[in-house]
Amino acid sequence: MTDILSVRALAFDVFGTVVDWRSAVIRDGEELSRKKGIEVDWAAFADEWRGRYAPSMDRVRQGEIHWANLDALHRASLEELLEEFGIEGLAEDEKDYLNKVWHRLDPWPDSVPGLARLRERYIITTLSNGNVALLTDIAKWAGLPWDLILSAELVHHYKPDPETYLMVSGLLNLRPEQVMLVAAHPSDLRHAQENGLRAAYVPRPLEWGPEGEAEEPDPLFDLVAEDFVDLAGKLGA
Amino acid sequence: MTDILSVRALAFDVFGTVVDWRSAVIRDGEELSRKKGIEVDWAAFADEWRGRYAPSMDRVRQGEIHWANLDALHRASLEELLEEFGIEGLAEDEKDYLNKVWHRLDPWPDSVPGLARLRERYIITTLSNGNVALLTDIAKWAGLPWDLILSAELVHHYKPDPETYLMVSGLLNLRPEQVMLVAAHPSDLRHAQENGLRAAYVPRPLEWGPEGEAEEPDPLFDLVAEDFVDLAGKLGA
Repeated sequence: MTDILSVRALAFDVFGTVVDWRSAVIRDGEELSRKKGIEVDWAAFADEWRGRYAPSMDRVRQGEIHWANLDALHRASLEELLEEFGIEGLAEDEKDYLNKVWHRLDPWPDSVPGLARLRERYIITTLSNGNVALLTDIAKWAGLPWDLILSAELVHHYKPDPETYLMVSGLLNLRPEQVMLVAAHPSDLRHAQENGLRAAYVPRPLEWGPEGEAEEPDPLFDLVAEDFVDLAGKLGA
Repeated sequence: MTDILSVRALAFDVFGTVVDWRSAVIRDGEELSRKKGIEVDWAAFADEWRGRYAPSMDRVRQGEIHWANLDALHRASLEELLEEFGIEGLAEDEKDYLNKVWHRLDPWPDSVPGLARLRERYIITTLSNGNVALLTDIAKWAGLPWDLILSAELVHHYKPDPETYLMVSGLLNLRPEQVMLVAAHPSDLRHAQENGLRAAYVPRPLEWGPEGEAEEPDPLFDLVAEDFVDLAGKLGA
């Protein structure tokens, strides 16, 4: 393990790492089902929606389409999914409300108490592909005590483009190794390390539901923690 | 007074409006005087340092020099002032520490309780010419509970360039009139209004010291409040 005493800022991946997107989509989907009298497998819907996340950003990353923020990408995917799942008769404001479910995600049980402790000793920021409005809404909904909100939107590059990781150290006037990415996704962490950041892996086996499982930690990661409270303990906060 | 019920986000000017820069420069300057055995009129020093603020940003705004963040502009002004005040023999780390006094500014007494109330009902963000690292440090130093930190640095334009005011509504996915600038400086507020934002004037007569006084409110401002607690009351928070 490399020396982590020089770490000054923790940058958190958000979807899956801090908040549980899948349960929220199911929760709001089921409410919509009751209201409209439609039957939908919302767990499958949630997984397919999230499944379109990386491909939709890749179209931006590879220059296939111009910059579009995550609310817009979610909305384009939603239109496809409504057709695929045969969901008809939604008014514009109902579609908009459903799309904004990504603004109403609940935290994992340890997220708020863990962040509150970490904030005492470190600068804590988001580093997410979610846009600024979305991340701000989630923070207020879930009570996440960020010091600041940093988003791919600010550099018009999605993770894992280097511009995103280096934005954190650049804006905070730190060296890359003074920033540690905290994420539930090994690939995100490996890209952070390739750009000189430290990496803390917090597996979230429930991200894809009760049948899901987390990837094995990479021995190169600087830290592995069970949850954010464990992370606070391991980081002396 | 225009309808303010549609306001969703409050964007705060920081220097002078939320925190008291003058007292901090005097405080840290006097400590330096004791340590180095030098005699300096630190109140005059503080006022001159702040006096170079607008001209230094204007050089960036008018394209005379490339983008430089406020830490860098403060540092350039500091070098000039050290010479002007005949202060010699400071080591590099002492200069750096003195320059970073702008990261260690105390809040006005009402700032934290007022912001805490306003945050319950509104998105509260900075909208300052200070760079992100500086605003983050001030927030942690002074205990300011921002939802997010927005800075001129993110758009490489200083206030009063329109890009700064419109950044807030753009990133928060709001219309300009859903954003209210809160500032102790009428000119800042007028520029905000020219760009479609609402304006709340909170005079800070002590900004330039006990002899200072605040400008008269412009009758076009949407709101005038005595302090942030009064502002919270007037905004129903």
